[in-house]
Amino acid sequence: MTSNFLDLDKYIKRKTLIIEKNLYSYFENKNTILWQAMNYSIRAGGKRLRPVIALAVCEMLEGNEEVVIPSACAIEMIHTQSLIHDDLPSIDNDDLRRGKPTNHKVYGEAMAIIAGDGLITLAFYTICKYTKNTEYINILKVIEELSYAAGPDGMCGGQAIDIIAEKNKEFIVDENILNYIHSNKTGAIIKASGKIGAILSNASENEIELITSYCKNIGLAFQIIDDILDVKGETRILGKTARKDINKATFPNFYGIEKSIKIAKELVENAISNLDYFGNKAKYLIDLAYYILERNY
Amino acid sequence: MTSNFLDLDKYIKRKTLIIEKNLYSYFENKNTILWQAMNYSIRAGGKRLRPVIALAVCEMLEGNEEVVIPSACAIEMIHTQSLIHDDLPSIDNDDLRRGKPTNHKVYGEAMAIIAGDGLITLAFYTICKYTKNTEYINILKVIEELSYAAGPDGMCGGQAIDIIAEKNKEFIVDENILNYIHSNKTGAIIKASGKIGAILSNASENEIELITSYCKNIGLAFQIIDDILDVKGETRILGKTARKDINKATFPNFYGIEKSIKIAKELVENAISNLDYFGNKAKYLIDLAYYILERNY
Repeated sequence: MTSNFLDLDKYIKRKTLIIEKNLYSYFENKNTILWQAMNYSIRAGGKRLRPVIALAVCEMLEGNEEVVIPSACAIEMIHTQSLIHDDLPSIDNDDLRRGKPTNHKVYGEAMAIIAGDGLITLAFYTICKYTKNTEYINILKVIEELSYAAGPDGMCGGQAIDIIAEKNKEFIVDENILNYIHSNKTGAIIKASGKIGAILSNASENEIELITSYCKNIGLAFQIIDDILDVKGETRILGKTARKDINKATFPNFYGIEKSIKIAKELVENAISNLDYFGNKAKYLIDLAYYILERNY
Repeated sequence: MTSNFLDLDKYIKRKTLIIEKNLYSYFENKNTILWQAMNYSIRAGGKRLRPVIALAVCEMLEGNEEVVIPSACAIEMIHTQSLIHDDLPSIDNDDLRRGKPTNHKVYGEAMAIIAGDGLITLAFYTICKYTKNTEYINILKVIEELSYAAGPDGMCGGQAIDIIAEKNKEFIVDENILNYIHSNKTGAIIKASGKIGAILSNASENEIELITSYCKNIGLAFQIIDDILDVKGETRILGKTARKDINKATFPNFYGIEKSIKIAKELVENAISNLDYFGNKAKYLIDLAYYILERNY
């Protein structure tokens, strides 16, 4: 992280520690090979961006972090599942993820499929079982939000069109489809992360709307930068195979790098404008939006 | 269905109609290829045993069927997902299911994986979004129950050990492992079906316990008979490739057919003994238990 983001860096590290401590606790004393396979990908690291957003929203709203933690961990489980399944031979066929062999490379394809399924169900179980000190209706709203965001009109929907766009050469990707893929494949869960943090911090409707709009914008910006890094990047730094997306429906492939950076900048500016209402309390979420633009891995 | 079960047959048909009408309604106006892939397997038929159990428990307890329907449909979505993923080339590699080409044969492997994921998330979304006229705590209990039953200590857990037992010839299947596989792979969701029907019909703790025990017993009996039918069956009648399980960890492979039938009979008798408490109202659940023993497809 560059020197501009020292404060944010410390903040993210602090939140990541809290998340990982709790996330790992759900895997304690679980010793079957299936649990090991699930745990392998959960512990493979990553930026923990989504749960950090949930906790940062909670802190901005002066909510109770303990209430948000199980859902923040559930979000990371769903995200991890999507990576395991995306990496499978019949989808992206990737050998490397977060600098380590992908799940199916270690546990085999069959186990990797079931490990992904197990992580989805564990996510919803974790929310039900461990969320305390909030109204039941809030927990139900969170499950509805996450299941929608991860589902066929959200993340799965984005993955599916991405697969079609890549495998079917006659399928023409226009601006709308490009936006659909990325708003859903990555964006839906990032949006849900902020919204869930807000719901569990008893945010007003107006606050939820502002936070959702912030997340929607940074979610798409994050994916655009991810794809630019893929074009420019080195496998060593990215921790996943670089230049894999050369034939995929990405912003840099569609608009070129320069215009893609411009779009990402506008998205980040839009994102931040939603935070005016929260004044100084939004400091870390503002920094996070700028950081998404300037990160190099 | 044999003449002994004419009443039950009518009852199941009536309940199946209700389930399918509602189940299909969640797929209306959903036209992406992903939704089509999900819908293909949802509409491929099947016995609808699990949602029928949920509704039959509700009727026995004089509950409100409308309250149970979304969860009953969610259970069928999870069950369908497990079939789609089980049939994949890297797991059972099956071309035929319910008399039709398997999901990946029609939509490709990548889409079949995502269709399964989409059905899991849709299941939880359906419960949250459409369950009305019951306390929020009951809905949360249902989600906790279903996510546990479908997850790494339930259905996924059973699938994983089944995979290991089949692929790793050095893995020794003993009685405990055989029971673990089948109690979880098939049993967990059947057990959850009854329990969820009971929770949403405001059953007492004692009633929930009796119904859970009934379901646990018929669940294992159902799987044993399924495996016996596989040994004896014809592809034409079964609607899936027969004699596929010749090397798998099944009761007939482990105990032989005669002893397996004896075990299944004992399980059904145990199941029925749990229903004494409910008197005449348990008629259809009793018939269902006997039918599981005597079915031929």
